[in-house]
Amino acid sequence: MTWLDAVKWDADGLIPAIAQDYKTGRILMMAWMNREALELSAQEQRAIYFSRSRQKLWRKGEESGHVQKLHELRLDCDADVIVMMVEQLGGIACHTGRESCFYRVFENNEWVTVDPVLKDPKDIY
Amino acid sequence: MTWLDAVKWDADGLIPAIAQDYKTGRILMMAWMNREALELSAQEQRAIYFSRSRQKLWRKGEESGHVQKLHELRLDCDADVIVMMVEQLGGIACHTGRESCFYRVFENNEWVTVDPVLKDPKDIY
Repeated sequence: MTWLDAVKWDADGLIPAIAQDYKTGRILMMAWMNREALELSAQEQRAIYFSRSRQKLWRKGEESGHVQKLHELRLDCDADVIVMMVEQLGGIACHTGRESCFYRVFENNEWVTVDPVLKDPKDIY
Repeated sequence: MTWLDAVKWDADGLIPAIAQDYKTGRILMMAWMNREALELSAQEQRAIYFSRSRQKLWRKGEESGHVQKLHELRLDCDADVIVMMVEQLGGIACHTGRESCFYRVFENNEWVTVDPVLKDPKDIY
């Protein structure tokens, strides 16, 4: 039984992985990992996800340079969610050019965009 | 089109919801919400999940008293993950009696329990 066997993979062989800034605690994004992605993340000490839309490994930052260096990896009580403390290179996790993917706040029955675009996505990809 | 229609529900009509301590930024847990759970969470300003195992609404804290008061609700760029800033009453989110469900850290190819049990689960439920 390895540490990878302790993980409760879902029906598609995936687990949600939350990336959190290791200094500020800001939640940057949530994506999915398969067994290979989690193993490689631990080996290479950077976040490697499994893209459900493209059905392949997604080495976060491979195009944008916005690599997430891994500082700590945690598993929850049910063994079905991962939290990573990461250092977000470039300070941008979101494909919209924002620090975090969670840039919309619920206010007066609407989702209101409250965070600035730090870099034009055209200049990222 | 309401704010609930903006959410991209998965095939089971659910969305992952991450609860984060509004003061420390610590990630406490991740669970799931259906449309009703999200609507009620916003209305009642507390975390209400949908239990996949019991297939019914789960008003966090209804048995334990460990209610999560909602301070802020965010949606991500793909509209398929929720983050809640919460005040964790009792300081315990996990059913094991720990502050956070993420009490196991990956070290030397093992998941190592690093956080203390603050209250015996027998005294919670």
